[in-house]
Amino acid sequence: MKLPVSTEWLLHCAASLAQLKSGDTASAAQLAQYFDLPAAYLAKQLQALVKAGVLAATTGPRGGFRLARPASEITLLQLVEAVDGASSPYECREIRQQGRGALPAEECRTPCILAEKMAEAHRAWRRSLAATSLADIVAALPPSAPSRTRLRLTGAP
Amino acid sequence: MKLPVSTEWLLHCAASLAQLKSGDTASAAQLAQYFDLPAAYLAKQLQALVKAGVLAATTGPRGGFRLARPASEITLLQLVEAVDGASSPYECREIRQQGRGALPAEECRTPCILAEKMAEAHRAWRRSLAATSLADIVAALPPSAPSRTRLRLTGAP
Ligand code: FES
Ligand code: FES
Repeated sequence: MKLPVSTEWLLHCAASLAQLKSGDTASAAQLAQYFDLPAAYLAKQLQALVKAGVLAATTGPRGGFRLARPASEITLLQLVEAVDGASSPYECREIRQQGRGALPAEECRTPCILAEKMAEAHRAWRRSLAATSLADIVAALPPSAPSRTRLRLTGAP
Repeated sequence: MKLPVSTEWLLHCAASLAQLKSGDTASAAQLAQYFDLPAAYLAKQLQALVKAGVLAATTGPRGGFRLARPASEITLLQLVEAVDGASSPYECREIRQQGRGALPAEECRTPCILAEKMAEAHRAWRRSLAATSLADIVAALPPSAPSRTRLRLTGAP
């Protein structure tokens, strides 16, 4: 059970964009340099966050990426699921209905207790990630962090 | 982020073994027929549960698998981690320390807040799975289930 390596990239890119001044943007190239990441692949992943409605992309000479919503309204869950999808890591293929032990269909109208428990664990994971917003992340940084991030990421204080 | 397909197999195999009478065993072939699964591959996976100390394998003409501990002391977490390992799906590669935005090492003595939050979610998932034992699963089945399971799995009531 693995999340893509790019999950870390995009969490950090989104947390960095959350430190820009309102209206400012950073390009894929700037974000790639900031974290020393492959620019083309990162750009593709950033587009996935745009598609998920988490980032907005602006075009033109000063174009780039910014948060599509206030940082307080973007959770870690939304970011992670924009990268990896929202499906549960556990797949129930109704094994209880096959083979010599197959249960009759009328006993399978409610979900299997094992599938239920696995779904419950996934809900606990989702709930935990949904409880933290990008605003919470920025608030946990040292007070000097945002101005340094801005300067190194975009060149503007 | 996907768990192996065999996770469902082994949760169900373990839950079935939890319904046998004390001392009884079921062979890999019996379990494979019971759920219509590929016997050789299932046998390999059952050995992983033996290695993890969850199942015990007995040899001889009446040999097979049984729980290595009381069902109340085997949790879903132990079963899932025996199949898939215990590592977190999120990997932090200390991206904060690379590129133009690299933080100096002295600011990285504590874990990154994003890595922390991802670890917290993994702990919530683990906690949820650790809260359910095989005894809880068997207790949730209809009262007629264990005798049917025994009859169809091993031929003995
Ligand atoms: S039938 Fe899929 S988990 Fe039980
Ligand atoms: S440095 Fe790895 S999650 Fe922040």
